[in-house]
Amino acid sequence: MNQKNSFSFTLLTDSKHGPRAGVIQTKRGEINTPAFMPVGTAAAMKAMTVSQLKETGAQIILSNAYHLHNSPGEELIEKLGGLHRFMGWDGPMLTDSGGYQVFSLPLKKVEKEGVTFQYSKKGQKVKFTPEKSIAIQNRLGSDIIMAFDECLEHSASFEQARESLERTTHWAKRCKASHHNPDQALFGICQGAMYKELRIKSIHQLIEIGFPGYAIGGLSVGEGIENMKKVLDYTCPEMPIDKPRYVMGIGLPEDIFEAVERGIDMMDCVIPTKYARSGVLFTTRGRFRITQHQYKKDKFPVDLSCGCYCCSNFSRAYLNHLFTCNEVLSATLTSIHNTTFYIQLMTNMRNAIIKGEFPKFKKDFFELYFKQQKKKSV
Amino acid sequence: MNQKNSFSFTLLTDSKHGPRAGVIQTKRGEINTPAFMPVGTAAAMKAMTVSQLKETGAQIILSNAYHLHNSPGEELIEKLGGLHRFMGWDGPMLTDSGGYQVFSLPLKKVEKEGVTFQYSKKGQKVKFTPEKSIAIQNRLGSDIIMAFDECLEHSASFEQARESLERTTHWAKRCKASHHNPDQALFGICQGAMYKELRIKSIHQLIEIGFPGYAIGGLSVGEGIENMKKVLDYTCPEMPIDKPRYVMGIGLPEDIFEAVERGIDMMDCVIPTKYARSGVLFTTRGRFRITQHQYKKDKFPVDLSCGCYCCSNFSRAYLNHLFTCNEVLSATLTSIHNTTFYIQLMTNMRNAIIKGEFPKFKKDFFELYFKQQKKKSV
Repeated sequence: MNQKNSFSFTLLTDSKHGPRAGVIQTKRGEINTPAFMPVGTAAAMKAMTVSQLKETGAQIILSNAYHLHNSPGEELIEKLGGLHRFMGWDGPMLTDSGGYQVFSLPLKKVEKEGVTFQYSKKGQKVKFTPEKSIAIQNRLGSDIIMAFDECLEHSASFEQARESLERTTHWAKRCKASHHNPDQALFGICQGAMYKELRIKSIHQLIEIGFPGYAIGGLSVGEGIENMKKVLDYTCPEMPIDKPRYVMGIGLPEDIFEAVERGIDMMDCVIPTKYARSGVLFTTRGRFRITQHQYKKDKFPVDLSCGCYCCSNFSRAYLNHLFTCNEVLSATLTSIHNTTFYIQLMTNMRNAIIKGEFPKFKKDFFELYFKQQKKKSV
Repeated sequence: MNQKNSFSFTLLTDSKHGPRAGVIQTKRGEINTPAFMPVGTAAAMKAMTVSQLKETGAQIILSNAYHLHNSPGEELIEKLGGLHRFMGWDGPMLTDSGGYQVFSLPLKKVEKEGVTFQYSKKGQKVKFTPEKSIAIQNRLGSDIIMAFDECLEHSASFEQARESLERTTHWAKRCKASHHNPDQALFGICQGAMYKELRIKSIHQLIEIGFPGYAIGGLSVGEGIENMKKVLDYTCPEMPIDKPRYVMGIGLPEDIFEAVERGIDMMDCVIPTKYARSGVLFTTRGRFRITQHQYKKDKFPVDLSCGCYCCSNFSRAYLNHLFTCNEVLSATLTSIHNTTFYIQLMTNMRNAIIKGEFPKFKKDFFELYFKQQKKKSV
């Protein structure tokens, strides 16, 4: 490990293409890959304490530079000892750059220099440049930081996507130039919408700039799993083998399998916690909605094969009751379960990859997962 | 300890009047008195898991027969192994009878036979009789159950209160006659609004019926601390020395001190968790509202002298941020703190009582508590 740079990536498998297992080393600990990163946008996991989150087995979590800049501000967080101390999470952490908000916020103005965001019509205007995003992330002190990019609609025209990509590449250079903290690994983000030519151009340009890790952005924006697979199919083979590959905003278990199968090492998504809050639970036998009448008297845990706090202690009937009574505890227990399910799924995938049994594991998983799900109405 | 009856009460102090320390023994463990009981109305603590609740030091919690009857129903809870198993709490538990809902629900019809409740205008009508309340509580399996009483407005006229009291006494007899589970201790509830004559009559009538514990109901209904003190002043001396005394729905720390000073052993209240959710925090230096601007950059924990999970890990600035962002975690962390504060306060009171130093402890506590509070605007 380089003394100056505490970040490293070791592959445990030697396949050039296809699923891979590895270890990312950071100053704050290891991350076994493929890894799922739960999302705590505003320096907080929704409805879970960091202790509960740690118990799910999560090794790295994600937070967001744009939201933290708005409140409480990176200056305050830095003053209070950094993001880790602020939110009480001592493991590895990744911050997104604000690039996703170029896609997700309705009010913004994109220029060569940067993007002016407005959270709401009455909200304050906030200008993000590549330099500003990096400066914010530097002050937050996360372990992995992301280049400021322009996340596009999946339906963008070729010309739009080409122009945008030039901007993103230009910004990536500026990000690298303004980043000087060796304790934080800066990842580049590949864009190019759904166009093969642009995706390949993007990843080649990023490799030329040189980053310790590469992300694929602009997915999970409504393009559907088949389009996602296509983009991964022509982007992944162009990515460096010895650097972590992160596909942003993915996804459902079925999406994660497809990404991992194509050699992706890292994923993040709000799905496990967001679905949990609406009562949708993931199990080895498919997902189901706990609020449905059929679970009202169900004495079994959410998933008999799960060892999480929720499944070890509570019945489906109890969870159904908590939702009926609008108890906040419903969100906590189901978020614990869904997050544990995701983390456990990644561990199982990783073990299968190491044993060389990923295809069998995938087949067996989906056989059980979709067999039951067909009978249900989620 | 009687083989047939697992409930007992031992006093550790021998003062006939004034503050007392004791131990209540139940099948599911001991309760050190004076004890504060956090409230989990619908078989759930708001925004806390039972593990988090246990960490606060709480030894007994309260749930409500009326709410559980409505959802999910005592039949289901019994079928799933009882209330403890249903909600994952293995310590002592007390259920209220539904009597408080005679006061709190706007739509009800009180008759000699019982009370017909309606939760809302469109809601189903539910009739509670003394026998039904006991049967529900028997099926729930809580360790201490409460007689079904009529909780009155504090402004009730003497004639109203006298009539109501006769009903409550009559119901108390019927409760005792229909209760046959030796594992559950049935407490009688003293009523009589603000009238000395009626309160004394009530407690004497209950003693004649005979219960393993006695509660004072009809307080904490807007009468104010001075009226509460008066009721306790003339009721407590009439209560049996060798049985636990429980004042229902109390209260703020200042109320609890007054109750304990007058020889009360048990209290319950939603205040610590309810106030927590609105950002009002209790500390040895008074209570304050964490959402105020002055805490935005405050690096200190809520209470430097508190060892709870919230105070050990998070700053006031972080909590302020969580409220700003409407993060559910705000409710969890502040509920943990406030509940811990209450439980710790009871422990400190108890130690002071055992040492014979309660008056000094009370004086010192309020000196610090109110000195700071005067400066604040909660």
